[in-house]
Amino acid sequence: MANMLYQLCFGGVAVELDVFATVNGALDEGLNGKVVVVTDVLRATTTITVALTSGCLEVIPVLTPEEAIEMRERLGNGEHLLLGGERGALKIPGFHLGNSPLEYTPEVVEGKRLIMTTTNGTRAIRRAAAGKLVLLGALVNAPAVAAAAAKAEADVSFLCAGTKDRFSLEDFLTAGALVEEMLKQHDYTLRDGARAALEVYRAYRSDILGAFRSSYHGQQLIELGLEEDLDYCAQLGTLDIVPVYAGGLIKKLV
Amino acid sequence: MANMLYQLCFGGVAVELDVFATVNGALDEGLNGKVVVVTDVLRATTTITVALTSGCLEVIPVLTPEEAIEMRERLGNGEHLLLGGERGALKIPGFHLGNSPLEYTPEVVEGKRLIMTTTNGTRAIRRAAAGKLVLLGALVNAPAVAAAAAKAEADVSFLCAGTKDRFSLEDFLTAGALVEEMLKQHDYTLRDGARAALEVYRAYRSDILGAFRSSYHGQQLIELGLEEDLDYCAQLGTLDIVPVYAGGLIKKLV
Repeated sequence: MANMLYQLCFGGVAVELDVFATVNGALDEGLNGKVVVVTDVLRATTTITVALTSGCLEVIPVLTPEEAIEMRERLGNGEHLLLGGERGALKIPGFHLGNSPLEYTPEVVEGKRLIMTTTNGTRAIRRAAAGKLVLLGALVNAPAVAAAAAKAEADVSFLCAGTKDRFSLEDFLTAGALVEEMLKQHDYTLRDGARAALEVYRAYRSDILGAFRSSYHGQQLIELGLEEDLDYCAQLGTLDIVPVYAGGLIKKLV
Repeated sequence: MANMLYQLCFGGVAVELDVFATVNGALDEGLNGKVVVVTDVLRATTTITVALTSGCLEVIPVLTPEEAIEMRERLGNGEHLLLGGERGALKIPGFHLGNSPLEYTPEVVEGKRLIMTTTNGTRAIRRAAAGKLVLLGALVNAPAVAAAAAKAEADVSFLCAGTKDRFSLEDFLTAGALVEEMLKQHDYTLRDGARAALEVYRAYRSDILGAFRSSYHGQQLIELGLEEDLDYCAQLGTLDIVPVYAGGLIKKLV
């Protein structure tokens, strides 16, 4: 049987990969104590990867713009503390930065800390907090994230942020790319969600940008003039940074 | 863009198809007032289709075995009222029938009424009740269900029962088959979930039985000796009956 091909054991127990297509559809039993890889490829997890690559020291994910502003005040409003994120895909009034990976250059974020809130991504990151190790995955860092997840030698659940609790093609496809990258490291037992994500990735792998452009959320971003973000986010394996979430902070995995 | 190929409008509004991979991941906005097609191909929606094909007059879906027994008592315990369903994929003690489509022959169910409870299927059917039209879909009746759903000229949401709130390959694949059958009727706008389900179906269409056998739930059924049920459920388009759920009862759509 196909499933039997993907077997890896640590301490005699098969290691499983699974994919949850939406945050509200994720199960505690699928997250608690697992390696959880959060995917919000358009654009939060791509953008956070870029920010850390550009020398941003850490990212504090918060759920609402109000919470972001309050936190910055509490932390002294220093110029080394930036506010970033989006609502309706656009920069939040009064914030320093939006949610485009193209904004997060070394000139802007190097040596700074970032408080960030996005519609779907930061909620997914908070939901993943029950994991024993929480990583942020995108296409740009998929091989690096897969290698880090494989090294943990434990079950891995990919948690797609989705779009307002709805299935999003780009996140499911990205989870499939991450599963494929993990299978390059070892053979694993794939739960049904991981198998489906892998097939969706394989169906679109020859034209990932086309899949992003035709996705529901991709079309919204194009309508807002954010087409270049899609070009950026559709790149596979261009960055080596793996963001890890622990104790309320996102930092580079070292 | 790929999405633009699938356009059908009624009264100037594009008609959308979407797929929800699990019951807990389904959104009210995706169900309320829509045509909802519930899919629990292994085995509830297949079995109910077979029961109605065999002349069963109606099926009353209930959530628990206790509720089933109480309802039968309330309805007089007559010999024309059968109890069917499963827990742990096996017949419930004291019930007349389990959840295998092979049990529901005309000799057993013709002219009878059935009270039924299954682990995932009846819960999904109850969840779908917000729909303006609620149909039960399987592979055996996929073309007939797709034709009935298309005739309603409204958005269609496919609600996969899943396995204990977890993504199930066989239901997602079946939803994809139903999407494909609907595209034979008209062009539709496909939401991301429908596009992904379609790709998963296309990846496995040449060996649906193999996909069922290798699925998580399929493997459980095989271990219990229920392999013949998989053979039966993997057939495409062998039955013309469309079960419809309304007012707490499942009947043949006429």
